[in-house]
Amino acid sequence: MRATVMYGAGDVRVEDVPDARLIEPTDVLVRVTRAAICGSDLWPYKAMEPTDSGRRMGHELVGVVEDVGPDVRTLKPGSLVVSPFLWSDGTCVLCREGLHSACLHGGRYGFEDVDGGQGEAVRVPQADGTLVTLPVSEDDAVMPSLLALADVMGTGHHAAVAANVAPGKAVAVVGDGAVGLCGVIAAKRLGADQIILLGSNPERVALGRELGATDVVRERGPEAVERVHELTNGLGAHSVLECVGLEQAVDTALEVARPGGAVGRVGIPEHDTTPTGVAFWKNASIGGGPAPVRAYIEELLPDVLEGRIEPGRVFDRTGTLDEVPDGYRLMNEREVLKFQITF
Amino acid sequence: MRATVMYGAGDVRVEDVPDARLIEPTDVLVRVTRAAICGSDLWPYKAMEPTDSGRRMGHELVGVVEDVGPDVRTLKPGSLVVSPFLWSDGTCVLCREGLHSACLHGGRYGFEDVDGGQGEAVRVPQADGTLVTLPVSEDDAVMPSLLALADVMGTGHHAAVAANVAPGKAVAVVGDGAVGLCGVIAAKRLGADQIILLGSNPERVALGRELGATDVVRERGPEAVERVHELTNGLGAHSVLECVGLEQAVDTALEVARPGGAVGRVGIPEHDTTPTGVAFWKNASIGGGPAPVRAYIEELLPDVLEGRIEPGRVFDRTGTLDEVPDGYRLMNEREVLKFQITF
Repeated sequence: MRATVMYGAGDVRVEDVPDARLIEPTDVLVRVTRAAICGSDLWPYKAMEPTDSGRRMGHELVGVVEDVGPDVRTLKPGSLVVSPFLWSDGTCVLCREGLHSACLHGGRYGFEDVDGGQGEAVRVPQADGTLVTLPVSEDDAVMPSLLALADVMGTGHHAAVAANVAPGKAVAVVGDGAVGLCGVIAAKRLGADQIILLGSNPERVALGRELGATDVVRERGPEAVERVHELTNGLGAHSVLECVGLEQAVDTALEVARPGGAVGRVGIPEHDTTPTGVAFWKNASIGGGPAPVRAYIEELLPDVLEGRIEPGRVFDRTGTLDEVPDGYRLMNEREVLKFQITF
Repeated sequence: MRATVMYGAGDVRVEDVPDARLIEPTDVLVRVTRAAICGSDLWPYKAMEPTDSGRRMGHELVGVVEDVGPDVRTLKPGSLVVSPFLWSDGTCVLCREGLHSACLHGGRYGFEDVDGGQGEAVRVPQADGTLVTLPVSEDDAVMPSLLALADVMGTGHHAAVAANVAPGKAVAVVGDGAVGLCGVIAAKRLGADQIILLGSNPERVALGRELGATDVVRERGPEAVERVHELTNGLGAHSVLECVGLEQAVDTALEVARPGGAVGRVGIPEHDTTPTGVAFWKNASIGGGPAPVRAYIEELLPDVLEGRIEPGRVFDRTGTLDEVPDGYRLMNEREVLKFQITF
């Protein structure tokens, strides 16, 4: 089969790889119908050391079940499914608490005999726990939004949950990437009064306004902090969604939080240390991490199916598997917000 | 009047100072009947640069109202009152949200014309918002526990609230000082199943067991982290109360948190930066800060008055104002856990 392999920074190839196949009795084999390139895929695209063996890419996918292992109970061939970006058993103590991203028996796509999502097929481990069946046909108009449930929409929602977004609150969303824009959707869905989007890309902030942002702050650093305070009676935002992970964005997120506020972080941290003193002295909490997207799919699915939220709008370019190397380049150059792959 | 003044590290004197007096119309004048030395007073005691003017000390006090300003509505001479360690108006938007420690018109004892608590009398600004009337006589047996509501009990409770302590949870309390021991009381009061106290002082951890600790971890650093994991099925504690503030204690607090857990910080941070990466990857939240003790006094008061909690047990030495310099020395040498001053 054909799949995406990264060999180093800037070196993405689509090539023949061994066919995906069942290994464990709890696996299913999924033929991928839609996949995506993630903002987090750009980190190795910028910095990965060259390697001869390559790394299989992709962790967002919708597809059709082709074959099931003997211990699979809830899935059958022909079912259309969406996978969260991590696989998880759904039964361990942490999954039962809703933290599927820390599943005791879970893992990541593209590592250790598990295929990447940017390919024609994948072996899905712990399939009963991982996959969610979709009650639509594979060409339904809502499909891009269902694909967004694999990662960006659940991740934006996680930031909003970790930041305690609720009706009546002022929310700041740091970052106008796909996750930040999904954070805007999530904040609106959870009833925020004011949603301030911090971003500088004209097209992205315009989309952010359509999705629910009430204010846009194009400044960065101290000017952005001042501007958010101006927009919030001098106090700062009750809830801050940090959707970037770079040092300056994290600093800004902590600075714009109101006393007693909450920062929900989902941007992959550039640094392991954070200037938490600013948060301590104003009693702002810092939460978040890798989103337990599996826990959120069922919560968000009805809103997607009934058109109340449209996270698929973050996909502004669609192409075939062969166009994936171009997709990486265009996303890295910020020409494209998020690239959808159709098969 | 006589009051405590610090002139530099290790240099605490009790001396004549100008009498406390009303300045603002919202002030009351309180004759102090009980006060305390705080663990946070030891920070300047260890490190303060010598100064000729000195710094007035103390922020925990119970006393009797002697005189009231013309705008004071709820207090009258003769009332016995307890003050939180910060004064606050009780009416600003942040006080109304329960975050009195960030009051827009509040402040600290011992600074800018406001007396310190370790003296014969204090001017209390924003008195209607700050003080809570106590329905007991000034020599009631429960008085040490009421004095503890001025800071350490409310601070330990704040750590527990910020760490989301609830019935059924495993709690780790980092630090066996007065705040840590009050954190044990708070965790038990909020229904924790398991309370692991991290501390090495034999008398303090013994008191901790009496107050509700189910386990004691005397190790430090990586050994402490390993031991807490052994005690929690390998997962770590749902709720971690960081009651020290030193770098190693904060690191340990983050390390012993369970995936999806919460760390409540009340120890004054030694450093402004924190290795938050460990928390991000396991989705542990970090909250807390200066406790809004005023918000908690009314919640905790019935439990103190009815004897359900006894935070006054953290006072293991009582002396007069003249003995305060000895009190500092004994607390600094860890000979005394917490020093109560009677007048």
